[in-house]
Amino acid sequence: MTDAPTDAQQACFEAGIKFGSLYHQFAGTPVSPDSTRSLETAIAESIENQPYCESVTVDVLDDRVADAIDHENGYTELTGALMEVEMRIEYEGVVARTRMEMEDGYPLMKLQSVEQ
Amino acid sequence: MTDAPTDAQQACFEAGIKFGSLYHQFAGTPVSPDSTRSLETAIAESIENQPYCESVTVDVLDDRVADAIDHENGYTELTGALMEVEMRIEYEGVVARTRMEMEDGYPLMKLQSVEQ
Amino acid sequence: MTDAPTDAQQACFEAGIKFGSLYHQFAGTPVSPDSTRSLETAIAESIENQPYCESVTVDVLDDRVADAIDHENGYTELTGALMEVEMRIEYEGVVARTRMEMEDGYPLMKLQSVEQ
Amino acid sequence: MTDAPTDAQQACFEAGIKFGSLYHQFAGTPVSPDSTRSLETAIAESIENQPYCESVTVDVLDDRVADAIDHENGYTELTGALMEVEMRIEYEGVVARTRMEMEDGYPLMKLQSVEQ
Repeated sequence: MTDAPTDAQQACFEAGIKFGSLYHQFAGTPVSPDSTRSLETAIAESIENQPYCESVTVDVLDDRVADAIDHENGYTELTGALMEVEMRIEYEGVVARTRMEMEDGYPLMKLQSVEQ
Repeated sequence: MTDAPTDAQQACFEAGIKFGSLYHQFAGTPVSPDSTRSLETAIAESIENQPYCESVTVDVLDDRVADAIDHENGYTELTGALMEVEMRIEYEGVVARTRMEMEDGYPLMKLQSVEQ
Repeated sequence: MTDAPTDAQQACFEAGIKFGSLYHQFAGTPVSPDSTRSLETAIAESIENQPYCESVTVDVLDDRVADAIDHENGYTELTGALMEVEMRIEYEGVVARTRMEMEDGYPLMKLQSVEQ
Repeated sequence: MTDAPTDAQQACFEAGIKFGSLYHQFAGTPVSPDSTRSLETAIAESIENQPYCESVTVDVLDDRVADAIDHENGYTELTGALMEVEMRIEYEGVVARTRMEMEDGYPLMKLQSVEQ
């Protein structure tokens, strides 16, 4: 059965767009423990500009950044393993909540709940 | 009512991830009419690597690239206005179809249909 | 005549790397007048992590961002036309100064001076 | 002593721009052994569009990609450790040659020679 998407499905599609955008826009950014706070803020405020994106919380994990650092140069590049992200998307009254977390050693983008 | 996501919602979330990834990974790539074919192929084959992504078709539009070119340098940078994209995502038997197309002068990522 | 690079040439090479990095890492980032300050700070602090990069100043120009905005969505994407950048690179005692500015309608990355 | 840049210094600056652009545009791209060839071609043809860039050779190393793969998903993300790059830049008769190669476990962008 093929149907036009429901509002809840649209909300989930929009949530996915924000996650893919966040990851592929900012992965690779040079980061050190001195620049984690400004990077968190810029990522969150940037993605919150996108349509239907109500809130974004980004934690770039200082201890994992410190562990990942190339000690000769003093910095590393942002990857999914170095941050935790939560987002709330609202589309026509439907709220989708998403989270990026590590699972079995890999960062996984997860759709947590859909509320309507 | 808050529910765990359905398979159809998960399919739509995955479809959104692919679209956001594609756009923010490749937007900004230097492009000219001489390099449109190789860019189309690389974008499609790259995103098809992602989970649940069954097929990606990318058309970088030669005439729009030619129109957008900075004539001194002979190239421009890839934007949503210069390409058309279609994707088919399959998640646990659900098929989500998506498309990027221009609407009122802006590139819009659209969830076209969900089939289960 | 082929020669091993001089320190001054190395300084200029390093300066170029930072400029290309900055541009292609951050171009495409969603931006609105509400998020220009955090984006400026994150770009500067991120690129200052790179080797030999002594200082980076980024001005994302609020008025140009406002003019570039897609009024339906309330944001645009960062391009070279929306920011001014200055950098100072030091390599083995050589100081290279660079600047990105608009020229004939296009953003141009310029090597301004080399001091040794 | 502060001087206006020489043609050789400008050539080195341009060479650096190309390297930073290449790395930060394409790092993070999903890649598997099935998509290495198309990615190499697209990267090379894309960066060759940039001013003064005479030739770019990219080898995405199949064996390193295979080793880096997340076996559950069947792909990884492009990093400097997975590719070798050579470029030839010509600026006002000066030829700069550059190379990215691994050194002590880290990818290093190197200015190899300047010929005038």
